[in-house]
Amino acid sequence: MDSPLTGRRLGLVVLGSTGSIGRQTLDVVRALPGRFNLIGLAAGGNATLLEEQAREFRPRFVCCDREADYLRQRVSAQWADREQMAAHPDADLVVVATVGIAGLAPTLAALRAGKTVALANKEVLVVAGQLISAEARRHGAELRPIDSEHSAIWQCLWGEQPDSVERIILTASGGPFRDTPIEELDRVTAEQALRHPNWQMGQKITVDSATLLNKGLECIEARWLFDVPFDRIDVLLHRESIVHSLVEFRDGSVKAQLGAPDMRLPIQCALTYPERVPGGAVPRLDLKRIGSLTFGTPDMNRYPCLNLALEAGRRGGTYPAVLCAADEVAIQHFLAGRLRFTDIPRIIEGALGAHNNTADPTLDDVLASDASARDWAEDWIKAKT
Amino acid sequence: MDSPLTGRRLGLVVLGSTGSIGRQTLDVVRALPGRFNLIGLAAGGNATLLEEQAREFRPRFVCCDREADYLRQRVSAQWADREQMAAHPDADLVVVATVGIAGLAPTLAALRAGKTVALANKEVLVVAGQLISAEARRHGAELRPIDSEHSAIWQCLWGEQPDSVERIILTASGGPFRDTPIEELDRVTAEQALRHPNWQMGQKITVDSATLLNKGLECIEARWLFDVPFDRIDVLLHRESIVHSLVEFRDGSVKAQLGAPDMRLPIQCALTYPERVPGGAVPRLDLKRIGSLTFGTPDMNRYPCLNLALEAGRRGGTYPAVLCAADEVAIQHFLAGRLRFTDIPRIIEGALGAHNNTADPTLDDVLASDASARDWAEDWIKAKT
Repeated sequence: MDSPLTGRRLGLVVLGSTGSIGRQTLDVVRALPGRFNLIGLAAGGNATLLEEQAREFRPRFVCCDREADYLRQRVSAQWADREQMAAHPDADLVVVATVGIAGLAPTLAALRAGKTVALANKEVLVVAGQLISAEARRHGAELRPIDSEHSAIWQCLWGEQPDSVERIILTASGGPFRDTPIEELDRVTAEQALRHPNWQMGQKITVDSATLLNKGLECIEARWLFDVPFDRIDVLLHRESIVHSLVEFRDGSVKAQLGAPDMRLPIQCALTYPERVPGGAVPRLDLKRIGSLTFGTPDMNRYPCLNLALEAGRRGGTYPAVLCAADEVAIQHFLAGRLRFTDIPRIIEGALGAHNNTADPTLDDVLASDASARDWAEDWIKAKT
Repeated sequence: MDSPLTGRRLGLVVLGSTGSIGRQTLDVVRALPGRFNLIGLAAGGNATLLEEQAREFRPRFVCCDREADYLRQRVSAQWADREQMAAHPDADLVVVATVGIAGLAPTLAALRAGKTVALANKEVLVVAGQLISAEARRHGAELRPIDSEHSAIWQCLWGEQPDSVERIILTASGGPFRDTPIEELDRVTAEQALRHPNWQMGQKITVDSATLLNKGLECIEARWLFDVPFDRIDVLLHRESIVHSLVEFRDGSVKAQLGAPDMRLPIQCALTYPERVPGGAVPRLDLKRIGSLTFGTPDMNRYPCLNLALEAGRRGGTYPAVLCAADEVAIQHFLAGRLRFTDIPRIIEGALGAHNNTADPTLDDVLASDASARDWAEDWIKAKT
């Protein structure tokens, strides 16, 4: 069975196939048989799962950061690096579901080869948004969001003229500590931080959702994805995670996208656009049952990381790279029990304060800022613990 | 100053210019100077206001059901009937803001001349939806909604493929009697019925909003405007009138349009599509201030008129014409203090019960059903009062 739109199967590459988004991408592929031709699968360290995925989906290429020899023996696919897969002539759509700045190089490779990139790796746009969006424009390549918030905005923009947008409004659930007394936040554990009230996600993003740093990253991402000035992007507290985000237009009209909190919906949207395909696995939204939706302003005293992220976004240059790097190191140590939850903003604030900004950074500038921020954060932690 | 899109002013005809929607249409025209060329203004009985409007907007043609001689002397515009204006070569867009089936003939004239019709007169599609949509298709003419609910749905459908729609969900505020004990409804007055909690509208539609018959009419209208089967159209109780309606798509994604309850927004949308123009007069939506939005199921015991309207919509044929005619007569007498609020559904139910349906009706069938339903209703009222 061929894809009804193109008359042939869409050549698909999934980078980060063993992570949360990668696995759900393969759920979508499994639910829509005959629509995709799996060109490549790349994983970080989970060779066992990658082996399983390769047996089921029979990609032409695989790649894994660990256990390469083991995989080469057990899987019939060819070995290729992420950039090669992403730029392969038979690839049409590249899902970048890696974590951290590891997604940067393959994203650039895909865009330079004119591929459509479905982006779940938010750091890519956060640290190098200017570079990435310039490359996409230059090569006529399309960037589609996978994040539920950005997918919502994207869907609200279909059929709209670019100059119609007045404001982008990203919703935030507030995370697991939205009702925790602020003075208790320095005693919350990693286990508590990983209990998100509405979403099932990877560990790092779940902690970022608890600090709301994640929402700040999303604002920076939205700025580049939708070419909207940073001061026209707002954050709205919305506990129920039903309204995934909103767009306000110049005439005062507001459009919102709603849905059950299930990542398979935005993933499928990015994979099948402009078609909407019946999504059997995704639960239907029932507003009658939900009864009410609430909205409010995030309290910056509760969420200092949001404030830091917005500040880094406003300053631009290499500040967002420092923000991401310091955050990643801090979360690693927090999850390992070596840091308090409230140390995360302290480390980020320190790293941003110690940084000398580079405006209009090259990829090398970004990578250098990332590396020095990581060093700064590790030193801070070593000195403290 | 020419319209930025067409390079020339859009030729505009406003039928029903002295009613609530007509006046707000002229507010929008006034707020966007240089964009429209007013070809014609037509009014029912309010010659004084029409004279004022003609002096301000200098239309080429006017028309009024009363005081024709007076107006001919005092206004320099030529006299033309509604069909002539609607089909005039210089008319691009015809706003049909009349009330009742008076809007039918000029709407057909406009569509047959290939004009874009912005429709606020819901009876037109309710009683003759099949006919109207067939004529629009045949002549390649575009129908745009002005009703806030249908405008919301229309906006949510921009950029979407027609087969993507799963369900249309119309919101209803519940009107002024949503919290009145049901047993007190036979004692409510016309004055109370005219106090709508959220919207400023004409008298007839305000009473229709109190009985929720209006929402049933909107379901029938939506069925024809968006070519969606009747059983895929739902009504959702939403007290705040902020979410103007929603569309559920096949993949489970839901889009909603929100805004302050101000008719100038959907009117402007219909007039400037596909552009969105800064709407100075329309207040901005502030969800942070609003705080919460609620949703529920309408209670059919409270709203028997909604049930009757949905039943007439399901049966189709000439039933919707009978529904509208009986309702119009009943409301007239209710407003004059000659009927109780709870008599309105009784009259409609009786008229529908006494009717012999014609499937696939012609315009004459519709007009005949309208006339006999009016007679039936008047007789019922005479016998009772």
